[in-house]
Amino acid sequence: MGVFLVEGNKMVEEAIRSSFKIELLVCTSDFANQHPEVNNTGIELIITDSESISKASLLQNPQDALAIVCQPKNGFSELILEKELCLALDFIQDPGNLGTILRIADWYGIIHIVCSETTVDVFNPKVVQASMGAIFRVKTTITDLPSFIKNSVESGIPVYGTFLEGQNIYKQLLSPSGIIVLGNEGNGISDPISQLVTNKLVIPSFSTHKNKPESLNVAIAAAICCSEFRRR
Amino acid sequence: MGVFLVEGNKMVEEAIRSSFKIELLVCTSDFANQHPEVNNTGIELIITDSESISKASLLQNPQDALAIVCQPKNGFSELILEKELCLALDFIQDPGNLGTILRIADWYGIIHIVCSETTVDVFNPKVVQASMGAIFRVKTTITDLPSFIKNSVESGIPVYGTFLEGQNIYKQLLSPSGIIVLGNEGNGISDPISQLVTNKLVIPSFSTHKNKPESLNVAIAAAICCSEFRRR
Repeated sequence: MGVFLVEGNKMVEEAIRSSFKIELLVCTSDFANQHPEVNNTGIELIITDSESISKASLLQNPQDALAIVCQPKNGFSELILEKELCLALDFIQDPGNLGTILRIADWYGIIHIVCSETTVDVFNPKVVQASMGAIFRVKTTITDLPSFIKNSVESGIPVYGTFLEGQNIYKQLLSPSGIIVLGNEGNGISDPISQLVTNKLVIPSFSTHKNKPESLNVAIAAAICCSEFRRR
Repeated sequence: MGVFLVEGNKMVEEAIRSSFKIELLVCTSDFANQHPEVNNTGIELIITDSESISKASLLQNPQDALAIVCQPKNGFSELILEKELCLALDFIQDPGNLGTILRIADWYGIIHIVCSETTVDVFNPKVVQASMGAIFRVKTTITDLPSFIKNSVESGIPVYGTFLEGQNIYKQLLSPSGIIVLGNEGNGISDPISQLVTNKLVIPSFSTHKNKPESLNVAIAAAICCSEFRRR
């Protein structure tokens, strides 16, 4: 079972309150005193000074704590798709975007996120930091995404994705369950998956400028989609 | 009048098609041949090789062109607020967030963006890159934001902002004109401006987890607000 790095006081606090197993906590004595529960949970604890933490840290402004946390083993049952809205990530490359997408999903109560094998590792330290704690609440699974989407469509699950030629998202009926596919930053949703999407949507631009903007950032598009699905 | 740096083929192409004055264009002969219009517009042109462009570039993957472009002088009339929706940025610190906010505004046809004196410089190279061309279409002004908001409120302009204790944005009447205030990444909207906001909104969380997420990234909140104001 893999582990991942969690840094910064707030994120380490999130790790402590979460159901995740902490393998090792490195922190200052002040931090340990402020969180007495860490002494009672069998966590391996190293008390040291801020300077030593800085040396081990990837952050520009290291803080008083870092932790090595076990990666969870999340299962995924297709039954979930009949009741819940899930995100499917088709080759998201940028760790900041992925972390932000986890944070959006968490906000909108979307628990399950299915990642293509090509999507950046959700336990990459930059993803973890950008998720602002969402990494401890949403459940991610890596899968062969085209097969997963194909099986879902065959089971009658609605699969949504945004495309330039899609239907106006603001005017469509949107299901309370199913899959929203988010595509790559540069290339959008890949061809094999595009062909499987059952409901093609577009977030219309309201620009009246002669040079139209071409696209929205994928995390921004994710936010607008989640907002539209949930508000109804 | 100040200038700013524009990098990468796509962004330099946006600069060329825009109404902005290019002071200097540094590019490969291939790029110049693909854009013959640059020879006829009095732009100072330096043709060189990719290696020399790389040396002058701030990008991790430099391309075939960079340009020095004049900053526009944008005026701002308060009459605009009676007809249009504008954004007011109250101490946005992160260049990536600011660039993304410009891109969202551009997408949703919001032309005027008023920045506090504390907000990161819109012509910072990271802002310019993250804007993906929106910097050439939206109009930004720097102002004493508390005075600006105060005057607007006194003129009867609705001023919206998101707060934890606000009214559910999905259920509120939203005006087609007025001001949406976006606050600092860590601290939200500053106290002096909070006191002036006429319509306090919240983007409700749909999380059912026992540890609730605390907040959304400011650019994500901006996207959801713009989407809600525009879709109606």
